[in-house]
Amino acid sequence: MNNFKEITGGVTAAKGFEAAGIYCGIRKAKKDIAIIRSVVPAKVAAVFTLNKTLAAPVVLDKLVLNRSNRCSAIVVNSGNANACTGEKGFGDAERMAELTAKSLSIPKDEVLVASTGVIGQYLPMDVIETGIREVAAILSPNGGDDTAEAIMTTDTFAKTCTVSFEIGGKQVIIGGIAKGSGMIEPNMATMLAFITTDVNIEDSLLQKVFRKGINRSFNRISVDGDMSTNDMAVILANGLAENGEIVESTDEAMLFESALDHVVISLAKMIARDGEGATKLVEIEVKGAASHKDAVMAARSVANSNLVKTAIHGEDANWGRILAALGYSGVDLFPEQIELSMNDLPILGKGYTILIDEIKAKAALSEKNISLSINLNQGNDSATFWTCDLTKEYIHINASYRS
Amino acid sequence: MNNFKEITGGVTAAKGFEAAGIYCGIRKAKKDIAIIRSVVPAKVAAVFTLNKTLAAPVVLDKLVLNRSNRCSAIVVNSGNANACTGEKGFGDAERMAELTAKSLSIPKDEVLVASTGVIGQYLPMDVIETGIREVAAILSPNGGDDTAEAIMTTDTFAKTCTVSFEIGGKQVIIGGIAKGSGMIEPNMATMLAFITTDVNIEDSLLQKVFRKGINRSFNRISVDGDMSTNDMAVILANGLAENGEIVESTDEAMLFESALDHVVISLAKMIARDGEGATKLVEIEVKGAASHKDAVMAARSVANSNLVKTAIHGEDANWGRILAALGYSGVDLFPEQIELSMNDLPILGKGYTILIDEIKAKAALSEKNISLSINLNQGNDSATFWTCDLTKEYIHINASYRS
Repeated sequence: MNNFKEITGGVTAAKGFEAAGIYCGIRKAKKDIAIIRSVVPAKVAAVFTLNKTLAAPVVLDKLVLNRSNRCSAIVVNSGNANACTGEKGFGDAERMAELTAKSLSIPKDEVLVASTGVIGQYLPMDVIETGIREVAAILSPNGGDDTAEAIMTTDTFAKTCTVSFEIGGKQVIIGGIAKGSGMIEPNMATMLAFITTDVNIEDSLLQKVFRKGINRSFNRISVDGDMSTNDMAVILANGLAENGEIVESTDEAMLFESALDHVVISLAKMIARDGEGATKLVEIEVKGAASHKDAVMAARSVANSNLVKTAIHGEDANWGRILAALGYSGVDLFPEQIELSMNDLPILGKGYTILIDEIKAKAALSEKNISLSINLNQGNDSATFWTCDLTKEYIHINASYRS
Repeated sequence: MNNFKEITGGVTAAKGFEAAGIYCGIRKAKKDIAIIRSVVPAKVAAVFTLNKTLAAPVVLDKLVLNRSNRCSAIVVNSGNANACTGEKGFGDAERMAELTAKSLSIPKDEVLVASTGVIGQYLPMDVIETGIREVAAILSPNGGDDTAEAIMTTDTFAKTCTVSFEIGGKQVIIGGIAKGSGMIEPNMATMLAFITTDVNIEDSLLQKVFRKGINRSFNRISVDGDMSTNDMAVILANGLAENGEIVESTDEAMLFESALDHVVISLAKMIARDGEGATKLVEIEVKGAASHKDAVMAARSVANSNLVKTAIHGEDANWGRILAALGYSGVDLFPEQIELSMNDLPILGKGYTILIDEIKAKAALSEKNISLSINLNQGNDSATFWTCDLTKEYIHINASYRS
């Protein structure tokens, strides 16, 4: 039972946030530039890709966040990742920040920049400059949906989740948007996620809770095992809900954490479900692990197995492939101890006892939501991971993405 | 310039080896059981999968090789991997060895067993027992090709390579066969490889040279990143060429090593080329690495990237995906230092200098053999890796393999 309820609105649902997303002409005829703004400087926490090949906006944002702990606006474009673009690319990212700052009359160090799309091409700065001026002029408290649309690339639906709850008699809102949908792998995916909240929260607690949330959500999804150059997740907290500042180890902190988890896990699951070419969302729960690290490694190995993912696509309960993926996960496990079920249907018991009812298994796998439950029977730790099936459509999309 | 020449014959080309492969009825109407025999007990070296989920024949062979350092026969079936089959599976593997030993009147500890195919089903021992008796009765010095066929699963062609050369005035032959073609990943793939040679070589040197050869061949290929439960590579050396025993650090040792490398690298490349659904063989050379380990990690990361492999399938020189895969390889590299070429066509220079001629690149990528050359410009170490493109046919095959 949650103490929060889902509402609509995304990044503009919380007090004091405005946004807009429009088409400026970067690639395809879809919305491709957006600005999210807090009317007062907000506390900010951010997590970036671990890829060594860092896109220019990621390099810039890391520098900015070293200097500044407040953020008033995020400018984001889709269609071009501004990655592998060297000094010129870095200058272009800086220019995006400058123009946004100027258009909104805020300091440049309060602007973060994000890009997503094709790697290795320079940004078309002419259309982007015009686009930034245009979008900055129409920011509105109703712009959340357009913004969610504007950050999409091969995503087939906009990803947004918003919750409302009470803290100390005040209504607090957390709203988020995200985009996938290829190059998705734990430790951030080709994904962008922007979360806004009007909560009043201690700075250090915001950092901590956000990082924990990311580790339980965006770092637990995989579409193709490819880690992007551009990933980032950012939360802005502007305090306009006027609750008493939330500090660590309080009921309010726990409530905020669970509400934030709900938002980021919901967005992460949407990304997995909307993986390129995907037809199924696959939830992988590993329990009975000797450590949390083991549970994550085991789940990730299954989530990244092309053979498991094609079998699920073929609605074939090919548990042998799951055992193989667990076997090469790097976890020191005992395969004959493993128990396995799919959508609550027992598949395998200890000692390789085959429990599968092929007809029921086939029926279970025809569902859009597949849950694999794996018990390693080695300890008490667990982890959940989300992925999707691997389909011909994935190949189709990615064999022709750039050209 | 090599001091050896390619001949035909595979595992029965060397003196004193006989083999046969027949259909016994395990799954499909294709040859599915084979025996390779040395008429005198041979020295033996073997490398097995690192998967913790070990198939029964792998468990058995490891035990046998702990007791015995001579091998007279290998019995192998395709169509069923005898993996995740517990005690019954282990008993079935033992029974295969016993029957083979009995049929050939050799000690049971001189028999190795190999299986490949679907995981998690018991072997149909009735047809296998009959099959072993039948195939044992028709072993012949001309059975190499039938044996190569009998070990195939989803392979589209039989993989065989044989070389002949002189050592100390004696003709020496090394012949090998292998099978792929899904669940193929470094540290052995779902692959079996059997090499026979009549060379007379010191036992310890055979172990060492074989392990080195495996590390340069079968451990450098990847089809889908899935590591199998059944992989093994075995070499038998029966000494019947009657050359003076080869010992370490001699010209003869080097000659044998280079000839063996030729056989195992040729077989490994055939496996990569024949990856499930593959239309192209992709060779990835990483040079300028700070260490050999770095070179291997970087090459493996590119080889396992679904996005790189779909781009190559689409004949799209999407170098950004290669940079991204290098960036998450775990190597501490400097992406702006990387130089990249495809089939000798410069694609990217230092400082992200884009050198690509898209029309020429498209033409180069229409070839069946694609070579990516990546210079990290960090040091002097290098490594070569082989993989294939990722296609809709891979999905088709693997979404319907078991059923």
